[in-house]
Amino acid sequence: MKIDGKAMRTLWPSRDRRWVEIIDQTKLPHVLEIVRLETLAQAGVAIRTMQVRGAPLIGATAAYGLAIALLQDASDEAMARASAHLLAQRPTAVNLRWALDEMARVLVPLAPGARVAAAWDHAARIADDDVEACRRIGVHGLGLIEEIARRKAPGERVNILTHCNAGWLACVDWGTATSPIYHAHDAGLPVHVWVDETRPRNQGAALTAYELGAHGVPHTIVVDNAGGHLMQHGQVDLVIVGTDRVAANGDVANKIGTYLKALAARDTGVPFYVALPASTIDWSCDDGFKIEIEERPAGEVLQMTGRRAGGGVETVDIAAPGSPAANPAFDVTPARLVTALITERGIAPATRAGLLQLYPERGGVLS
Amino acid sequence: MKIDGKAMRTLWPSRDRRWVEIIDQTKLPHVLEIVRLETLAQAGVAIRTMQVRGAPLIGATAAYGLAIALLQDASDEAMARASAHLLAQRPTAVNLRWALDEMARVLVPLAPGARVAAAWDHAARIADDDVEACRRIGVHGLGLIEEIARRKAPGERVNILTHCNAGWLACVDWGTATSPIYHAHDAGLPVHVWVDETRPRNQGAALTAYELGAHGVPHTIVVDNAGGHLMQHGQVDLVIVGTDRVAANGDVANKIGTYLKALAARDTGVPFYVALPASTIDWSCDDGFKIEIEERPAGEVLQMTGRRAGGGVETVDIAAPGSPAANPAFDVTPARLVTALITERGIAPATRAGLLQLYPERGGVLS
Repeated sequence: MKIDGKAMRTLWPSRDRRWVEIIDQTKLPHVLEIVRLETLAQAGVAIRTMQVRGAPLIGATAAYGLAIALLQDASDEAMARASAHLLAQRPTAVNLRWALDEMARVLVPLAPGARVAAAWDHAARIADDDVEACRRIGVHGLGLIEEIARRKAPGERVNILTHCNAGWLACVDWGTATSPIYHAHDAGLPVHVWVDETRPRNQGAALTAYELGAHGVPHTIVVDNAGGHLMQHGQVDLVIVGTDRVAANGDVANKIGTYLKALAARDTGVPFYVALPASTIDWSCDDGFKIEIEERPAGEVLQMTGRRAGGGVETVDIAAPGSPAANPAFDVTPARLVTALITERGIAPATRAGLLQLYPERGGVLS
Repeated sequence: MKIDGKAMRTLWPSRDRRWVEIIDQTKLPHVLEIVRLETLAQAGVAIRTMQVRGAPLIGATAAYGLAIALLQDASDEAMARASAHLLAQRPTAVNLRWALDEMARVLVPLAPGARVAAAWDHAARIADDDVEACRRIGVHGLGLIEEIARRKAPGERVNILTHCNAGWLACVDWGTATSPIYHAHDAGLPVHVWVDETRPRNQGAALTAYELGAHGVPHTIVVDNAGGHLMQHGQVDLVIVGTDRVAANGDVANKIGTYLKALAARDTGVPFYVALPASTIDWSCDDGFKIEIEERPAGEVLQMTGRRAGGGVETVDIAAPGSPAANPAFDVTPARLVTALITERGIAPATRAGLLQLYPERGGVLS
């Protein structure tokens, strides 16, 4: 998408295939800083320190990190070592393992001399495939927004609420939840986005607001508490969120607080959509409530980072001194509260049957 | 309640009836600072700048502010002027007007020479009446907690979730939502409180956590997003919140986000209680959705104040630069989601009939 009118991705390789550049997301929204990754070590640091974050982007960065490593040594041994190093940076990220397995599948059968070119080709393909999946999610979701716009007076805005950042910053381009929004905006539809702040890490106020603003999409930040009130008062036409994992029964694990918005949407008759690529579906999990929920550090709740009026970035303690905090990072929204899933293959009910309708090749797994 | 083992109220008069002291709540939770109010002007500033906040405490402070003013001049004219000055500090606060009307009712008929003593007596009575109403709310609410404790294994904690600060800091002592909690804790029941952070002003993380911690009540701060997840996983036995206004049909206006917790409580079978004194019931309002919702400054959403590691307090900008914010301060929880109301007269369903059962003298108003 665009930043100040210039089309960008979240990472891009050099023409001579020696390095990649990324947007350092630890600095957003306070500073837009581009970082060049020229070594395996730098790629590892970028993943570990969350200079890149979001499952698809982590996968693409790992693929390029391996391609960079092979420039030095493309032997079986070096390749395995580089892959293990990258995998260790965020061991729980599903897409990280997936991308490295993909690279190994293509590269291992090749002679070392042929691996470098193939690695850069395949890393590019992983990135491009993600862009294409996100683009398709957007095309399918656009139809939903067009339908709402048709029921409104000409020019009347379509209000979409989203939670956390399932935007292009989490992917390579387009994003998942944001892709229908960008498609609608670029098509000239008058969309306006309610951006949930998304405590504790504030990915909404920091990242989603940043990327929407940079692309020129009208939006308004609200605290996570406000969405129910907005829905009660007819100020939300639809909710679109992303997801970290969808169980085979349609239950949706996503950023903490998603469940509360799904409840409010149901109570007020607002449609609630979840946007995702196929790689997010966990076909081995038949019940979302079996998904283990990560408990993150209390400091994320008790502290806040921002820009000082006088310049510079500072972290401050915001809570009563000595009070402990708990920090469950995700919650599970039961499938019954989800209007439908938006995937790269189309829109389907959040049910086992709905998922199989889009991915019939998975029927064997589920039977 | 207690701070570091010492029983305190949120304001107290000097023995010689010349001044009152208050806890400066604009400094909490970062610093505990006592401020002495010796003039009408100082009392006005305390109310306007929210050194005192919470409807009952504002009322009591205004009553004492008038008593302080009368020390200088107890004529009809001076009394009217002082009262008008105090009322102008926060014109929308219902209890401010109520307390000043109460003072006028008692003082106007008296000769100026008798007014000073009567004013200090009546201000003390307003404060004491609030303490007594809150105490009774606690006694009634204690029964609910005891009932839950009886169903648990001995020593197993009772988990109570609360939103915002309806604590003793908002009142003179005990608080409303917190009064059952303090009563249970003081009675030796193993209560534990999930404290909603309560963005944007963070009254939960700042004030509720502070007062629970100071009194020694076990508690854990969570972001507002977390409550639904906790309820899904059986970690909340009951919810108790306060309210800014209850409509005569039982609809509850309270801090933004209350509605979302009520929805989650309903979805997960957790009882959801609202604690309030009679003065919070708006008998003239037959539908909570007619209550106008205050829109507060965007800066409360876009900025955050906290303690620097190096000392001192700093306000930082936390969101994407240039992104706008909306800040509705309250929402309305429909009566259908409220298990019951806890008042100083007892517990009743959140319905017109339930309220009339506790306040039969209001039957004429509603018929």
